Amino acid sequence: MQVIDNSIYVGANLIDDRVFLRQLASGRKVLVVSDTNASSLYLSVLLDSLSLSECKSVILPSGEACKTFASIELIIAKLVHGEYDRSSLIIALGGGVVCDLAAFAASIFMRGTNLILIPTTLLAQIDAGIGGKTGCNHLGIKNLLGTFYLPEAIIIDYQLTQTISDREYSSALAEVIKYGVSLDAEFFAWLEDNKSALRARDPSILPYIIERCCKLKMQVVHTDLRDQKSRWKLNFGHTFAHAIESVTNFSKYTHGEAVAIGMMMATSAALKLGLVNQEIMDRLGRLLVYLGLPVKVDSSVCSTSVLCDYMKRDKKSSAGRVNLVLPRAIGEVVLHSIIMDREYEDVCLKMTDISMVDIGDSA
Amino acid sequence: MQVIDNSIYVGANLIDDRVFLRQLASGRKVLVVSDTNASSLYLSVLLDSLSLSECKSVILPSGEACKTFASIELIIAKLVHGEYDRSSLIIALGGGVVCDLAAFAASIFMRGTNLILIPTTLLAQIDAGIGGKTGCNHLGIKNLLGTFYLPEAIIIDYQLTQTISDREYSSALAEVIKYGVSLDAEFFAWLEDNKSALRARDPSILPYIIERCCKLKMQVVHTDLRDQKSRWKLNFGHTFAHAIESVTNFSKYTHGEAVAIGMMMATSAALKLGLVNQEIMDRLGRLLVYLGLPVKVDSSVCSTSVLCDYMKRDKKSSAGRVNLVLPRAIGEVVLHSIIMDREYEDVCLKMTDISMVDIGDSA
Repeated sequence: MQVIDNSIYVGANLIDDRVFLRQLASGRKVLVVSDTNASSLYLSVLLDSLSLSECKSVILPSGEACKTFASIELIIAKLVHGEYDRSSLIIALGGGVVCDLAAFAASIFMRGTNLILIPTTLLAQIDAGIGGKTGCNHLGIKNLLGTFYLPEAIIIDYQLTQTISDREYSSALAEVIKYGVSLDAEFFAWLEDNKSALRARDPSILPYIIERCCKLKMQVVHTDLRDQKSRWKLNFGHTFAHAIESVTNFSKYTHGEAVAIGMMMATSAALKLGLVNQEIMDRLGRLLVYLGLPVKVDSSVCSTSVLCDYMKRDKKSSAGRVNLVLPRAIGEVVLHSIIMDREYEDVCLKMTDISMVDIGDSA
Repeated sequence: MQVIDNSIYVGANLIDDRVFLRQLASGRKVLVVSDTNASSLYLSVLLDSLSLSECKSVILPSGEACKTFASIELIIAKLVHGEYDRSSLIIALGGGVVCDLAAFAASIFMRGTNLILIPTTLLAQIDAGIGGKTGCNHLGIKNLLGTFYLPEAIIIDYQLTQTISDREYSSALAEVIKYGVSLDAEFFAWLEDNKSALRARDPSILPYIIERCCKLKMQVVHTDLRDQKSRWKLNFGHTFAHAIESVTNFSKYTHGEAVAIGMMMATSAALKLGLVNQEIMDRLGRLLVYLGLPVKVDSSVCSTSVLCDYMKRDKKSSAGRVNLVLPRAIGEVVLHSIIMDREYEDVCLKMTDISMVDIGDSA
């Protein structure tokens, strides 16, 4: 088992490890929050490892649709009726949605109770479950409500991700690629060099990818937990992605797919603004396509004007400006503040027209 | 104007001070959260000082009944529809309920937006509005949901409290007395020495009381914002008080009155346990009664067994124990952990039977 940052435990078969898990829970009253997907696969093993009964869990429906305050209220009600208190422990077992919801509930129940996350998808293991952001969607806006709240431990059992679908796997790789473009040129080159192993889901490369992504993210988070200084770097592709997901009702694209398209949009904006050259656009596009990710939004389901309206309401927007995270090189991003006028329209509205004809044979 | 702790501004007529207020707001988009009481008295002055229109405010009904998540949702909806973002500023104008609600909303809207509190009641100025606790009641439990979130500034305009009723004024004094018993014997003696001026609402002593209470509270808060170490000291009388308020549906007693009774219950528990002598009980009781505060719960509206059930669910309870803050001397409290068995019943259930016959002539 590898320990990152004193709190992130990466290894195989960790949810079977009774000694390890009971040491972490250390006799506290536990409530497991999970969803129908993750619980059908792993809940009985986890409850067994912790010697808990079935009734010590809340099972939410799977998917983004349940990422509402109603789910938070469900968790809170279970805590109250089960006579949990601020010395109790909430364990999240699931993907990003479950981790975000359980963490949000933990952060506001009696002004904060103890929290351990067990992300079960690759996406949550390398991104969504790491870094202390909690939240739920509200009034149709993604993560409108939430807090910053670090769990006491994150358990990353990479055996769990073997059951995810190819589409989910590819989607997670979009965030992996994001780390490379935003923060780590060497890692991006490594991903290019190992793209066949990546596409083939070679399990031997998984621990390395997870560790590298977690380390990169925690470096940023420690500098800026509350997203006031450098944390915007992790948002490369995400302003566009959040808009795409909202406009398409979180159904057409996975989060990772929207991020893939968003990264291409941001890179083509950077190209138009003269920040990068065509080669960077091509390298990114080639890798995404090779790994089965979309690089262009389907204009039949996602109108650009609606997309722009959503972007204006992004949390990263402020005082009439949309702040876009744009690449300046592989491994380096800059924050580009765009006033919502002609410049904005020029950069954003026409972005979806860019044709991806030159990414060629590697697809 | 006096500045405490770099963020608490105490003075007269501060909400009329355009230069001061505009400097604090510094051009940000502002939403004022208030209630029907405070807004009828001060909203137009505040909006005028800030050059804001009426539509930049949310007015909640006055009173504890509106301290629900529905009110939080109302504030959030106003923020969304007004296209506020995380660079905006929420200003709370009201008593403890308004401050707690506005601060909770500010802490979870887009994972945290800027916040300034303008407490308008003496209670909020010396206690409820200070110290970073936010929250709302939920499922019938006081402050079940909430966060720790410090405002960037607290504006304490002691002119505002001249309009509060005598009952509200007395209730606030219960918390003032709490500071004395919990933390500051010299201050308690000062309160005894100045009890006539206190009862007569002599305005000249107000600035001193506010400053002393704010300093005492912020000293504790800086040591322990998240209530994990020494912050329990501020909770003298409150475990009982929360139970009394809940059982009587927040209607029979004000918070301060419940705290007054709670302090007497805690002190009589301390007496039974041999922690204090009768003299301390008498000094506290005399001061409370002189200032128009109750010292005994009305047993016709508040059964002790129901009271005990509520106390078990207090946030300060954990792992089957009720933790009571009990005095050991004037100016010193200890945390006493009581297991819910015979000892608990003995200390708590019989407490309301203590007759207050000996506080005598000063009432």
